[in-house]
Amino acid sequence: METAAFVKQLFEQTSFLDQPESLYEPIEYTMRLSGKRLRPQLLINAAVMFGGTPEAVAPAAVAIETFHNFTLLHDDLMDKAPLRRGNPTVHCKWNPNVAILSGDAMLVLAWKHLLQLQSDNLHDILTTFNDTAIGVMEGQQYDMDFESRHDVSIPEYIEMIRLKTAVLLAGALKIGALCANAPAEDIERIYRFGNHIGIAFQLQDDLLDAYGDTATLGKKTGQDILDNKKTFLPLKALELASPAQAEALRKIFTTECTLSDDEKIARVLDLYNQLDIRRYTQDEIDNQFSIADEALESINLPAEKKATLKQLAQGLLGRQK
Amino acid sequence: METAAFVKQLFEQTSFLDQPESLYEPIEYTMRLSGKRLRPQLLINAAVMFGGTPEAVAPAAVAIETFHNFTLLHDDLMDKAPLRRGNPTVHCKWNPNVAILSGDAMLVLAWKHLLQLQSDNLHDILTTFNDTAIGVMEGQQYDMDFESRHDVSIPEYIEMIRLKTAVLLAGALKIGALCANAPAEDIERIYRFGNHIGIAFQLQDDLLDAYGDTATLGKKTGQDILDNKKTFLPLKALELASPAQAEALRKIFTTECTLSDDEKIARVLDLYNQLDIRRYTQDEIDNQFSIADEALESINLPAEKKATLKQLAQGLLGRQK
Repeated sequence: METAAFVKQLFEQTSFLDQPESLYEPIEYTMRLSGKRLRPQLLINAAVMFGGTPEAVAPAAVAIETFHNFTLLHDDLMDKAPLRRGNPTVHCKWNPNVAILSGDAMLVLAWKHLLQLQSDNLHDILTTFNDTAIGVMEGQQYDMDFESRHDVSIPEYIEMIRLKTAVLLAGALKIGALCANAPAEDIERIYRFGNHIGIAFQLQDDLLDAYGDTATLGKKTGQDILDNKKTFLPLKALELASPAQAEALRKIFTTECTLSDDEKIARVLDLYNQLDIRRYTQDEIDNQFSIADEALESINLPAEKKATLKQLAQGLLGRQK
Repeated sequence: METAAFVKQLFEQTSFLDQPESLYEPIEYTMRLSGKRLRPQLLINAAVMFGGTPEAVAPAAVAIETFHNFTLLHDDLMDKAPLRRGNPTVHCKWNPNVAILSGDAMLVLAWKHLLQLQSDNLHDILTTFNDTAIGVMEGQQYDMDFESRHDVSIPEYIEMIRLKTAVLLAGALKIGALCANAPAEDIERIYRFGNHIGIAFQLQDDLLDAYGDTATLGKKTGQDILDNKKTFLPLKALELASPAQAEALRKIFTTECTLSDDEKIARVLDLYNQLDIRRYTQDEIDNQFSIADEALESINLPAEKKATLKQLAQGLLGRQK
């Protein structure tokens, strides 16, 4: 069976319901909101690549997806987001306390699933999981801290998105490789692959917000600009801008800005275009992608074994052939 | 060194500070607010009783206290409590998002500490920890559910306080015993001991709210009554009350009750006295205490080995000789 089909079936078969219902129903609801299940797929593909089976690593795949959904649940609460994947978020459908407690329980359930693994590497797997979890939380905190800071550098921004987004992809891959007893140096390489694919993926998300195709994207462009989000694009623009351009950009990126939405987006895009920000961002994406690609290439396995992960990475970045 | 002194030193030496400060400072703050450190003491005493050393189980002691403080942090947020041990709670001193995320990180830090243990029983220890954690969360959820229910039975209430309060004491003892490789049947007995001591302890807390000595207690009595908290006392009263008395009690235990605080407390106490609720509650405490005591007695060790835990339990319930 293909990994995607295996993962789909796995989550259809995994119930999160228990007593008290008021604790577990929001968990079941969250786990049912269908996402791409990207992280379980990465984990399973990494394991299979090194000779493991999807069945053997299934508990780890459930654990990593449960953790990921826990982060979405608590992030949505902190961001006061009303919708997730088109459905009401838990704190809206129930209430904030339910969101706090059900999220906490999901974190413990992730651990419970992990402990069902049969592996000689369990200690390393658990350590990787914990380091991943704490990394994601540190990333989320840096993201919140950056909202009120006006001196965020590009290296700081890249480190923030690495923690917030990339380490979970890298951690999923590493756990899959550990489950399949991959050699230590290949585990390092697959982790590196995940890290840089994750950074490239987030940078592309930043880029698409400004230059994406609304039809393909399924959402309007310019939302980051309207939210004054200091993504790679405005940070790069501030770096390259003349004093006058920087002053103009800073004025637009404040809550006091009185421009209409369309006007605000248009002015920022105009500035980006003057400074060639699209190309700079694409260069950084390409740079991150090639570091990731090199890391994957250097893994001691024949190319055909690595094809699935390579395709998955290309798919993530819209580079399918 | 005595356990209490060892625990005090252990927490003085354990730092929770790291980067980003905005994530870790609230954790360090929470862990510094001095509590009794009861759970680490139970854990270490259980280990020592079965031949372990405080040093060897120290990571587990830190883990259990970190978990306990995580629950207080998130509970205070859910309860909107302004103070904890006389100090501002994290969501007040910082903000609710900080309380959510720092709490989440504490849960992961607890696991990280656990993984520092050197033990052949690590898998059982981790399983016990997870079962304990999820039990505490289920207990918290039942407690919240009960607020809007009017048909809570006494067995349901006892099960709720068992989950919310007792399983963490029982879990701490069991983890200590597991660390010291205690025999399986003794591990069951010490868990049973913790469970029933925990229930007795919570019931005594309920009783002291109505009949405690304000001077000894350090807080005013009657707070549960003013909060319309359905503890053992009103539940027992409703069970024994005549239809007229039950009706009167239900009327007082609503938010619409217009009595002054002193009047409300006086009326409820009067009803409790008529129904002999103080004696019924004390009987249930004695009952739980003697189940706990029997469980401790049945552990296959000489009495002098069990003296420390016996004293700790008596101390908890104000039964020092």
